[in-house]
Order: sequence, then C-alpha cells, then structure tokens
Amino acid sequence: MEIITAPSEIETLMPGQLLARGVCRHLASHGFVTIEEFTPERGRRVDVMAMGPKAEIWVIECKSSRADFMSDGKWQGYLQWCDRYFWAVDQDFPTELLPEDTGLIFADAYDAEIIRMAPEEKLAGARRNAVVRRFATHAARRLHWLRDPDATRYY
Amino acid sequence: MEIITAPSEIETLMPGQLLARGVCRHLASHGFVTIEEFTPERGRRVDVMAMGPKAEIWVIECKSSRADFMSDGKWQGYLQWCDRYFWAVDQDFPTELLPEDTGLIFADAYDAEIIRMAPEEKLAGARRNAVVRRFATHAARRLHWLRDPDATRYY
Repeated sequence: MEIITAPSEIETLMPGQLLARGVCRHLASHGFVTIEEFTPERGRRVDVMAMGPKAEIWVIECKSSRADFMSDGKWQGYLQWCDRYFWAVDQDFPTELLPEDTGLIFADAYDAEIIRMAPEEKLAGARRNAVVRRFATHAARRLHWLRDPDATRYY
Repeated sequence: MEIITAPSEIETLMPGQLLARGVCRHLASHGFVTIEEFTPERGRRVDVMAMGPKAEIWVIECKSSRADFMSDGKWQGYLQWCDRYFWAVDQDFPTELLPEDTGLIFADAYDAEIIRMAPEEKLAGARRNAVVRRFATHAARRLHWLRDPDATRYY
C-alpha cells in the first residue's frame, strides 16, 4: 500500500519535487490537472502526469541535476503512456544532455515555462481511456485517504 | 471558485456528510473510488460519486432525515450521470418514502451496507468517458489544492 502524507511544506520537498511544484502550477494555467508520483503500471513512477481539457496526457520528468538525469534508465518506457513527453529542469541544467525530440520546461518551485513543446504521439483511444481511468482512480483514492485516513483499511 | 478545506475531523461533519463518510469506506471495499460533493454539471451537486474497477459510475445521495429527502427536487436529474443510483440513510430513516427502483444503502459514519442493489441503466460510452474525465479532473484539482494551496490562483 502506498504511503500518503499530509500536504507538504515547501521546506520539506526534495529538489525534484520543488520543480514538480512549479510545473503543476504552470500546467494548471493551461487548463491541465496534475498528479505527482503517478504509477501508470507496476514498477514505473512518473514525476508529474498531466491531463488536459481534451484528455491530452502529458508526462513530465523533473531532473534536478546532471547525475539525476544520467541515472534515469526508465524514461523511454513512459512514452507509451502519454501524448507528449517533457523534461523539467532548472535554468542551470545542462540542457544539451536532453534528447532533442522531447519537450523542455524550465521550472522552479513557484512557476514554470514551456521552452520547447514536445512532439505529439497520440495515444490510441483505448489506451487513453485506460490511462484516464487510472489517473482518476489514483487521484480519488489519495484524496479519500487525506480526508479520512482510516479509509486506507478499506482498500 | 470552489472552497477547499483541510481534511475534516468527524466532529465537524454535517449529518449527511457522516453518512457519506461511511458510504465511501464501504465502497472502497468493493474496489470503488469516490468523490464527495461532485458537480457533474453546473447547478447540480451529488453527495457521493463512485467509480468502480470497470469505470462503473454510481451516484449515492445521502439523506439524514425525512425533511432532507422531501426537500430534494433534483435527484432524478442525476440518473443520467450514472449506471446505478442509490440512497444512503441511517437505520431510523422511513425507507418506505424512497422510490422502489433505486438502490438503498444503510450507513453510519464508520461503515455502510448495500441493502438493495440499484437497477442498472448503463451509460453510453461517450457519456461514460466524459463523466470519468470530469471525475478525474475534479479529484486531481482538489488534491492539487490540498498539497499546494497557492495553486488555486493558477486555475
């Protein structure tokens, strides 16, 4: 079972989570809703999964350093779960490391900006529906556990 | 804009919200996720919207008293948003008031039991997808506001 913590104070967040915070705010201004640390399937966890007004699915991986990026061997596995794939980094990140056919977002803890739009590889309809249902399940369950922590026993 | 409060202590909940609390716990044991006070469209707000493992959509209206039930002129409008429609009441409620072709759940603040399964009127595929997307949006947005209250400015 997943562990859910109370809403975090900014001081307690890790560098990647600070980037995610700014990314989620910025995407909200584009009409997207977001989940952090979403698990599209067992063994994979994406930093930010976003759903747009037309159920567009974007994945954003947040990298706080060169080492953080170099140690990520899983990102290509996320491409099958989204229409567009982005990296979110701070402005000191060596962006020449990032693959060109992916999106780029500059972020800090307070906001973000899309620097390069990711190419679109549209999900098939059935896959999109499955991802949206999983997204809905994940968000509603976390929300339930926050409003009634004892509810975790019932899942 | 919707007002979001921190997770509630049980002492602060209204009678209908206490029933909803037990309903949400019980539905979790059936593999359903739930949202309270969901707005399927402007001007309508359902007490509990539940989504099952196959994206089954159930609506549960929680009635704490005869007066609470008699003053509800809107419930038939919710039938178009779900596969099954239920009432949730406590064990002292005069259940003979409730329409026979609806489901019945006995609830308290801690758990609930399905007494009469609601008949199924399956949503069309496009409507189901729209409801699931709205459910996902609603849950993710509330969750975002809880983890980052300042994010409300970005929506």
